[in-house]
Amino acid sequence: MAKLNPHFDDLPASYLFREIKRRAGLFQEKNPGVPLLRLGIGDTTQPLPPAVIAGLHAAVDKLSRKETYTGYMDEGSVALREALVKRYAERGVSLDIDEIFISDGAKPDSANIQSIFSVHNTVAVQDPAYPVYVDTNVMAGRAGKLTKKGYSRFVYMPCTEENGFIPDIPKKKVDLIYICSPNNPTGMVATHAQLKRFVDYANRNKAVIIFDAAYSTYITDPDLPRTIYEVPGAEKCAIEISSFSKEAGFTGVRLGWTVVPKTVRAEGSKAGKVNALWNRRQATMFNGASNIVQEGGVAVLSEPGQKECREIIAYYMNNASVIKKGLEKTGLKVYGGVNAPFLWVKAPGKMKSWDFFDKLLNEAHVVGTPGSGFGPCGEGYFRLSAFGDAGDTQRAVASIQASLKI
Amino acid sequence: MAKLNPHFDDLPASYLFREIKRRAGLFQEKNPGVPLLRLGIGDTTQPLPPAVIAGLHAAVDKLSRKETYTGYMDEGSVALREALVKRYAERGVSLDIDEIFISDGAKPDSANIQSIFSVHNTVAVQDPAYPVYVDTNVMAGRAGKLTKKGYSRFVYMPCTEENGFIPDIPKKKVDLIYICSPNNPTGMVATHAQLKRFVDYANRNKAVIIFDAAYSTYITDPDLPRTIYEVPGAEKCAIEISSFSKEAGFTGVRLGWTVVPKTVRAEGSKAGKVNALWNRRQATMFNGASNIVQEGGVAVLSEPGQKECREIIAYYMNNASVIKKGLEKTGLKVYGGVNAPFLWVKAPGKMKSWDFFDKLLNEAHVVGTPGSGFGPCGEGYFRLSAFGDAGDTQRAVASIQASLKI
Repeated sequence: MAKLNPHFDDLPASYLFREIKRRAGLFQEKNPGVPLLRLGIGDTTQPLPPAVIAGLHAAVDKLSRKETYTGYMDEGSVALREALVKRYAERGVSLDIDEIFISDGAKPDSANIQSIFSVHNTVAVQDPAYPVYVDTNVMAGRAGKLTKKGYSRFVYMPCTEENGFIPDIPKKKVDLIYICSPNNPTGMVATHAQLKRFVDYANRNKAVIIFDAAYSTYITDPDLPRTIYEVPGAEKCAIEISSFSKEAGFTGVRLGWTVVPKTVRAEGSKAGKVNALWNRRQATMFNGASNIVQEGGVAVLSEPGQKECREIIAYYMNNASVIKKGLEKTGLKVYGGVNAPFLWVKAPGKMKSWDFFDKLLNEAHVVGTPGSGFGPCGEGYFRLSAFGDAGDTQRAVASIQASLKI
Repeated sequence: MAKLNPHFDDLPASYLFREIKRRAGLFQEKNPGVPLLRLGIGDTTQPLPPAVIAGLHAAVDKLSRKETYTGYMDEGSVALREALVKRYAERGVSLDIDEIFISDGAKPDSANIQSIFSVHNTVAVQDPAYPVYVDTNVMAGRAGKLTKKGYSRFVYMPCTEENGFIPDIPKKKVDLIYICSPNNPTGMVATHAQLKRFVDYANRNKAVIIFDAAYSTYITDPDLPRTIYEVPGAEKCAIEISSFSKEAGFTGVRLGWTVVPKTVRAEGSKAGKVNALWNRRQATMFNGASNIVQEGGVAVLSEPGQKECREIIAYYMNNASVIKKGLEKTGLKVYGGVNAPFLWVKAPGKMKSWDFFDKLLNEAHVVGTPGSGFGPCGEGYFRLSAFGDAGDTQRAVASIQASLKI
């Protein structure tokens, strides 16, 4: 008889964003006609800018003519990878074109990357963390059992008010370390010195860092690292995953990339090179991002594309500022929202995350994301995203202010 | 220290299509200016038809306006899934919209589907078979060691001249069965009666069939099943994977779907329903196919889209007929190529697959695919694809005829 993967039973019963959708749906059933202001899932709302639209149209036109038609593009557009190499070079980072793997987004890559590692690795995750890092390792059998303190085999790195939500290196010896900066959900950004402690730890312990840089284009502070490879030694221990989703509004268009330097090593396979295994994994299990979308990515990285995308980022970062200032006026403590599109709000009093979610849903008609959905240390916090429409964001802030009675 | 997935070492040293590319590249280095005629990898060559191009442009335009902009579309376009439900209904198959999962292609789905099953399942594959079924189960640890007879833990179902390249049900008890029809690489198509033996076997043994129907639109014979669900009982034991790649020239555009009926059960997880696990897998590890591409899919399934795509299929099937007749004239035995876009050619004499590959590459400047790359029973065979340009296909046939001296 066919047997299912038993580790799926180790997952929490509900996927966070499905539960949010369910509760919001129930509210709308009971309150038809009441508009909900959604600052929850982190979905982008602004249209693609002209240079990117033009690039996508040109790509579609190419497919209409025999001379320019293209089929499989598994290995990723050379033009796109060269443009990315150039971007890294601007930050002083030297990469080879075959150290960059084009994909359909940071989520699939951060989900799939664990599959090239043995199930016997010890995994360290930030707490709170983007659920994909946790859930995919649970499904692969690296997690152990779920207790009130989290999964028994994970090493959690608590992100708290005390450490400014940037954790210190693990106290135990671990093999794989997931770090996200600018952080989802806390909106905090690691400094060069903070990342260096992780890189040094990884090189000392022969661990591999999986660095999620999906929000790096939201950094404007020149002193903050936009890629982990700005830290010397990272090229020996770090994989970096990134995305066009938030830089260019590609959440639905789907495009991302993963950097695996050829100098990153691990044991347990003859190949030794992590790059070789990821290459093999992708060649076997993936057929490349859409050729249309890859050309859209080239347009994003063009000079006019970059200028236009920076304007959209500025629009979203203005939302972040409106939320931060507006909620601070109510006396709430608000973290993040500077150099990052997420805000991490401390619920008032000793209120729990889901209670605050229900309060804001029912009283302010605002949908956010309960911090506890990102891990035990997220309890008592609430994530808001800056990716809404500016008018909706202002209305949401005013509505939260009214609900909190100021 | 980080440990790599040791099962990658169980893979054959080289990925079939990479090795073909390598040998073709070497030939071109030594013979600059000699054009190669590529009938190997099965990549489409004809441009997308007008209705589909119009659908893709309209989708891009939608992203340029705030009112029509869309972000995440994880669960798949409702319009697209409804159009697919309608297509199945035309074959007498009744499906629910949430039994259809939209993806970026049949390759990723046939690669990922194994991850929802336990590593302790016994896997049956056709021999020869599309390498993705084999390699992904190797990487997951279901294969055992590679011997001359294949992997020790797999159950092979030999496809030979004697059984018309459609195997009988496994003699041993197995849990997961991969079947592809119309078949890649042999180009043979299973009849209703042949599929029924598998469906009955699976229901009797509580096995799950993973049915790859990526080439089903190449079937014109009204008596041949285009979906496994035409066989009663399949809704209780079969997952069907399909694709727009070969129907609509979407090899580079990327769009496919997987059907998991809610009535398919397996043990080992509380959920029991295979549909629930695949849903969870996709929600956690995938972010949906590109919204642009999904609208292209809707255009493919529109009336004008279907008419235009059928013309392209007829064009490719004319190539298949040209290859079949042309090679049969040389005395070669040619299977497939009717109701399927692949031709399975028996190498002359006792010639081995790679020797025949080298002969055709060096003498006829034709690139095909060695049958042995698809499994031990493929030795002595050679796959040609009908997806080339008509002129190139005719030249390739003439060139093979000249090289075989007729």
